[in-house]
Amino acid sequence: MRLGKVIGELWATRKQEDLSGFKLLIVRDMEPDGTELKGYTVAADTVDAGVGEVVLMVSGSATRQTDATGLIPSDTVIVARVDKITMG
Amino acid sequence: MRLGKVIGELWATRKQEDLSGFKLLIVRDMEPDGTELKGYTVAADTVDAGVGEVVLMVSGSATRQTDATGLIPSDTVIVARVDKITMG
Amino acid sequence: MRLGKVIGELWATRKQEDLSGFKLLIVRDMEPDGTELKGYTVAADTVDAGVGEVVLMVSGSATRQTDATGLIPSDTVIVARVDKITMG
Amino acid sequence: MRLGKVIGELWATRKQEDLSGFKLLIVRDMEPDGTELKGYTVAADTVDAGVGEVVLMVSGSATRQTDATGLIPSDTVIVARVDKITMG
Amino acid sequence: MRLGKVIGELWATRKQEDLSGFKLLIVRDMEPDGTELKGYTVAADTVDAGVGEVVLMVSGSATRQTDATGLIPSDTVIVARVDKITMG
Repeated sequence: MRLGKVIGELWATRKQEDLSGFKLLIVRDMEPDGTELKGYTVAADTVDAGVGEVVLMVSGSATRQTDATGLIPSDTVIVARVDKITMG
Repeated sequence: MRLGKVIGELWATRKQEDLSGFKLLIVRDMEPDGTELKGYTVAADTVDAGVGEVVLMVSGSATRQTDATGLIPSDTVIVARVDKITMG
Repeated sequence: MRLGKVIGELWATRKQEDLSGFKLLIVRDMEPDGTELKGYTVAADTVDAGVGEVVLMVSGSATRQTDATGLIPSDTVIVARVDKITMG
Repeated sequence: MRLGKVIGELWATRKQEDLSGFKLLIVRDMEPDGTELKGYTVAADTVDAGVGEVVLMVSGSATRQTDATGLIPSDTVIVARVDKITMG
Repeated sequence: MRLGKVIGELWATRKQEDLSGFKLLIVRDMEPDGTELKGYTVAADTVDAGVGEVVLMVSGSATRQTDATGLIPSDTVIVARVDKITMG
């Protein structure tokens, strides 16, 4: 799983119907210490995350291992809003 | 999921039959702000996208979570034509 | 999906039996304009491709969405010999 | 599979319920010789690993091939605490 | 699939039980011409490969398409010992 900061939202009216009903967020990759990286992902939101928040993303078939995300036709899903990261 | 700009189309007569009937588009990777990146993907089109358009692509097994894309033997599918990206 | 140019072939007698019967080709990554890139892939051939040809490769579980490739224990399969790429 | 060194832990109260009960560790990528690399992964722990330990991570659908990890909605799981690496 | 050279072996007593019985090898990425690259993978061995040998690795769900590898909880498996690579 990867960490990211929500930086925006994507809007599309002409899309696969199964994508309707999910907020599609633009998430900037980030280091555990908060440093923003170059990459980004468009992820389906399942925890009502908002712009500026640090989130945890799951990719691949693991996104279909929860009841809530089982049918999302997305390769990356936001599964948690991060409260705290403790570094050893 | 990733964003891209459609830059071309691929033609192949000698191919797996299951690929017939799908438009195969060349999609340049791009940043959410529109900057084009170095990578590209060949993606099966499901939303009648055209050259120059900004699209949303899904990769991996998630491409088989919609009725329309269920049987496409492609690892990346265009699932939406992007109307707007709002940055926080 | 990704484009590549076939540059060689791999031979192995001590291998998983299920791999027998498939030609294993070395494919150099390339840009849509024909520029060769640094990466490469070893891909199982399903369209009788030969050295020097430009091909289309599918990776991941999508390789098992066609009758012909359904049981190939390969993570990347050549699914088409490319005739033409038109750039917008 | 990849090697990593556990460097921290992630805490989240607002998350998918299925993630509850798993320790989510921050793991820094590393070379087999112990050199730390730039990347990192957030991985669900299944072997009671702790900060500072060298661990082995499995990604993708393979994470669901063990009884213990079968239902973890995580794309990366820590499956072993490394005792020793012998270089040829 | 990717080529690599076996450079070491990993030992772990505290691990998922399903991993027992498989030799876990450290494999350095390499070019088809034999040049060693920077990356590496830890792969489960199914063809009795040894240090110094050039091997072929399969990643992802394709690792479960053979009888022998069907239940290995590993995301990468060594499926062949390479005899020869002919370049066009």
